[in-house]
Order: sequence, then C-alpha cells, then structure tokens
Amino acid sequence: MTHTSELQLRRASLWAALRTERVDAFLVLALPNLRYLAGFTGSNAVLLVTEDRALLFTDPRYQTQAPLESDCEVKVAKGSLLEAAMSWVKRLHATRLGFERNRISFDQHQFLLKERTTKGRPPIRLRPIAVAVERLRMVKSETEIATIRTAVGLNSEAFEQALAQFKPGDSEVDLAAEIEYRMRRLGADGPSFDTIVASGPRTALPHAHPTDAPVSRNELLLIDMGATVAGYASDMTRTLAVGGLSPKARRMYRAVWESQLAAIEAVKPGVTCHTVDRAARRVLARYGFEKLFIHSTGHGLGLEIHEGPRIGRREATVLEAGMVITIEPGVYLEGVGGVRIEDTVAVTANGCEILTRTGKELRIL
Amino acid sequence: MTHTSELQLRRASLWAALRTERVDAFLVLALPNLRYLAGFTGSNAVLLVTEDRALLFTDPRYQTQAPLESDCEVKVAKGSLLEAAMSWVKRLHATRLGFERNRISFDQHQFLLKERTTKGRPPIRLRPIAVAVERLRMVKSETEIATIRTAVGLNSEAFEQALAQFKPGDSEVDLAAEIEYRMRRLGADGPSFDTIVASGPRTALPHAHPTDAPVSRNELLLIDMGATVAGYASDMTRTLAVGGLSPKARRMYRAVWESQLAAIEAVKPGVTCHTVDRAARRVLARYGFEKLFIHSTGHGLGLEIHEGPRIGRREATVLEAGMVITIEPGVYLEGVGGVRIEDTVAVTANGCEILTRTGKELRIL
Repeated sequence: MTHTSELQLRRASLWAALRTERVDAFLVLALPNLRYLAGFTGSNAVLLVTEDRALLFTDPRYQTQAPLESDCEVKVAKGSLLEAAMSWVKRLHATRLGFERNRISFDQHQFLLKERTTKGRPPIRLRPIAVAVERLRMVKSETEIATIRTAVGLNSEAFEQALAQFKPGDSEVDLAAEIEYRMRRLGADGPSFDTIVASGPRTALPHAHPTDAPVSRNELLLIDMGATVAGYASDMTRTLAVGGLSPKARRMYRAVWESQLAAIEAVKPGVTCHTVDRAARRVLARYGFEKLFIHSTGHGLGLEIHEGPRIGRREATVLEAGMVITIEPGVYLEGVGGVRIEDTVAVTANGCEILTRTGKELRIL
Repeated sequence: MTHTSELQLRRASLWAALRTERVDAFLVLALPNLRYLAGFTGSNAVLLVTEDRALLFTDPRYQTQAPLESDCEVKVAKGSLLEAAMSWVKRLHATRLGFERNRISFDQHQFLLKERTTKGRPPIRLRPIAVAVERLRMVKSETEIATIRTAVGLNSEAFEQALAQFKPGDSEVDLAAEIEYRMRRLGADGPSFDTIVASGPRTALPHAHPTDAPVSRNELLLIDMGATVAGYASDMTRTLAVGGLSPKARRMYRAVWESQLAAIEAVKPGVTCHTVDRAARRVLARYGFEKLFIHSTGHGLGLEIHEGPRIGRREATVLEAGMVITIEPGVYLEGVGGVRIEDTVAVTANGCEILTRTGKELRIL
C-alpha cells in the first residue's frame, strides 16, 4: 500500500508539471498512471485530478477495495466511468481539461468531444497532453527503488530455486512453471511478463514461448524472467550452457557479456540513453556481431515492465539519478542460437547500482 | 498454430463484413484481433488487410517467428510499424482506409491523419470502424471451442490438484501459487488473469488479490481462476467452505447456486443477453440478495479473457450458437463474505453445453 503522503506528493508534482499546460483538470485513464497517483490497484477506474481535489471513479465491484487503497474521493458509478467523470468536470466548473493523449483511445476521445458541452456554457476545452505521468514515473523515489530491489532479489532467488530442481531432459515449460511457482511462493504478485525459457536453436527467437521440447545437452538455455512485487516489476535474463558449447556459442556469450558490462559502465546521470546503447553495440561490432543485435539495449521498468526511458539508438533522454533501467544486449543467429544477458540497474548520484545479484559467468549445468 | 485455411476464412469473413463500409484497406492494431486474423502471437505488430492481400508488420525480434506462425506477407520494420504500414497503404493505392476505432489510440489516429497525404494525390480517407473483428470473434469455430474446452478441462484439473495439496492454515498466496503451477505443468501458457484466492471476509471483495493471510477454519474460500491454452482463456469460480459455515453463508451459497443454474437454463440461441442476466437476478431477488449482486452475470471469452457478449442488464446482443460465455452470479456482504459460482458455457444449436465439469455442490474442506 502506497503511503498517502507519497501519493499526495506525486499529485502535487504532476500539478507542477502541468502548470505550463494551463489546464484546470486532468483526466487519468491509464491504470499504471492511476495506481501511481491514487494507489488503487483494481482493473477499472478513471481518475480526475484538479489542483486541490482527486476523484477516483470505479465500479461497484471495487466499492469496498477502493477506499481502503486510495486517499482519493471515491465515486462508485454503475455505468460509464468516463461519463461519471465528465459530469464532475462540469460540476467543478473546469474549463480546460487535459487528457493523456498517448493513452486515451480514439473512441474515448470522441466521447469527450460529445460530452464537453453544456447548455448555456462554452464547451470545455480539451488539451491532449503527452506522457506527463510517465515522465514523473521515470524517476523513482527511494521507496520505489526499495520495492524494485525486493522484486529483483526475489527474481534471483526464484531463478536459483528453479535451477536447483532442473535436470537436462525437463521441458522448457516445466522449467518456466517451476520459475513462476517459486516466484509466487516467495511472495510475488506473479510474473511481470510471460516467462521465456528457450533452449537450443530456439534461443535465437528473442521472445520465444516455452514449448514441451526437452532441454537437451550441449545446447544453450535462455531464461528471461520477471516478478511483480507490490506492483513493481523486475526483469532478468541469463543464458546458460547445458553441458558443453561450441566455440561459436562460447564466443557469442563472451561478446554479449562484454557488451553488457560496457553498457553498464556507461550508465550515470547526465549521459544520454543512446550513448549507453552505443557502448553495447560498439563491443558487439568488435566481434562482428553488430547485425545480430536486433533490439534495443534496455528499457525503464517500474509499475510497468516496459516504461521510459528506452535505451535505444535514437533515444535522447538524459539519464537521471533514480531512473531504473534494464541493460540487455543480445545476439541471435538463426539455426544456431542466441545469447542475452540482462540486469536491472538503478542510476545513482555518481553512476549506477546493479540491482541484480545473480552472477554472469557462463554457468554450465 | 492456427491452420492457414482457417486464417484465410477469417479474413474472408472480415472482408465480407466490411463490404458496407466501402474501404479498400483495413488496419488491425489490437493484438488479439491480429492473432485471430494472422496467427501471429508476438507482442508487437500491425496488420494491413485488403481484399486480396494481408501484410504483417513486425520488428526484427520477430523476424524468424513471424513467418513460422503467420501465412501473411511479413514485413520487418526497424522504426514505427504504423509508418511502415502507411507507406504500404500508399503503395497499394488504397484510398479509403478503415481502422479499429475502439482500439486505436488518440495518438495513433493523429499519426494517420498526418501520414495520409501524398503530394499530388487526394488524402486517403480514414474510416473509423467499430468492433468488426471482435464481432466475428464472438462466434467461435469448432476448433476454437475445442481449444476452449481443453483450457476449461485443464483448469478443472489444476483446481483439483491444487486442492489436494491444500491444508487449512496455508495462505491465500500459497494456494494461488499452487494453482498456477499446476496449470503450467498441465500445459497452460499461463493464467488467463491474476488468480483470485480470498478467504473469510475478504471473499466480499469480488476482485481480491491473494494475501499472506492463512485460510482459516469455518470460513468461506473463493477461488476464481483461468488458464490460457494455445491462446484461449478459461474462467471458473468456486466458493468452498473450510469447515462449518454460518446459516447466513449457507443461504448465500444456495441462492447463488440456484441463480447460476437459472441463468444457464436461459442460455440458448435467439435469447437476448439481458434475459440471461435477468434470470440470474430474479432468483437472487427471491432471497432478498439482489442489491448484493454488484456486477454483470457473465462475459464472452476466447483469445481475451473478457470479450463480447457481455451478459449484463442492458446488453441487447442476441445469443448465437458458437458463442462461449461465462455465467457467474455472486453476492457480496461487506464484513461477512461473498459467494460466486462461475462456469464457462458454449451456446449450441438447441441450448448450451456447460464446458466446466467441476461440481457445484458446496464442498467442505
């Protein structure tokens, strides 16, 4: 449960950030943003924020839960939550309503256009606002980093517990099931994304679903896993060897490991995200693997498994202390296999802290 | 993997359904809709359908996976997928482009508005189209129903296996972890939503997250669980007694059970959804519980855990053979507890088939 004073602080920061937008009310539709500002964890709600009020609209299923979780004024609506929120926009005499342009659907926006008029008054002005809450969320508080640290630690522990059970010949699905079970037993809300367990040539699919295929000897085994703890995600990838590996696979491992270390080395406040991405690519290029690295180097994480900043080739965001990102270069060679190594790191005042404690030396099962 | 001929049939049905819209290309952004039409299971793609072509745009992470899964022409794009799709809209000389109005974001729509012009040509006309693919998806093929039947059966089996392990005093989280583990081991892709395990007064929260609280004797225990199998969801709720129950709780159980049977009894082709909803409410009213039933009676399910039709008070959709819906009335009394009983049922030519085989008599642990 997020402390009321932290929620109030976040809403005050939002309001400060919105000052130049000149709105007198702001509508929050994206659930992670709503959870961040209002503390509510349910699956259906709309938040209306003004300078001095915060109204949370939800349906009757949450009439008991919402006031327990949130310090906002809870309004239980039986029909459309957006309709209920718009009637309050009018009741509060708001004239300029901001909305989340990257989150609202075409249909919801059409609905606002329809609902913004009241007889005898000028229509409410609608202002599309981009990533206002997401921008705040990029820089985490100490409490948030502590929660992510817990999620990351739990993740590593579940990884070890599941590997301790593992025997060559078990299927990818068995191992994924064991990982998610261990996460849960250790206190996770659940996996933060579909656990990836891929072995042999399937490791060349960066987002492979686990299959019934047995994990065989003398092959690569790639595990990409995340746990959600108190709403916050962790994310870790390790590539292992089941028995001996070919010289080619060993060279891929070495290249990715070096690349990952170089990228982490580059992480500190004031550095642009694309510089970190470039640090990873430069090492892979030295090995001739640059074309086999077919995704970006990392991403922010928090209440969502993917949030800002993206650590990509063209990302101009400048790192700040408090940002929490993944660093996860990989190389993928169709028919042979893939290697990816991923840690979660927090940007600190002087550099970064690697939150993930699991070792990165090639582990041979 | 969906068979190519089934994918082609679906796209042909979509095109027939779009005839009155007079578009010459249709853009699909919602991933479940895209999976339905193109067979692709990844997390990032855009589909462009014309009368005789289907182009699937995805990013390089899926360059190997996409052609394995989909019969569409795969175009791997490094930047914005929507931009890549729009350049093909122009290349195909489409002049009226349909888009999914309930799925596209405000921002994506703005992007289409910006990209629709080419020098020396009239701008492409954009036509918002509501729930075209969702409407097709409401009526399932035999193959789809077979997959849902598998998911439902697996769900019941995981429920039994987890309960066999359960002892009073285990926590809600322990039981949720066991359930999800069993699902996975039995071959599910994962849970189709966050498993709900609530005991005692927490059963009064219809969407409770499991907690560390031990499941105690002489209390209600509510389990709402679903498994995804080959992309298709199942959904089942059972309320159990751990030891003896109060007469009040027993009466609630009896009312909900009767209500659920009455609603199932009403399910057949030609019946309007609100009639089914009313059948459930009528029974609860007889017990004086109508105000404690604070959600709708059910929902369709398939590639998404919630899809059309909604079995609600004001839902005018008429049931057709091939629809698959949940029937899940519940009563919730703050401070005391809640009871919900939910099955998945398929509408057949003459009535319905209850896919869920797990018994509904009050089970005392």
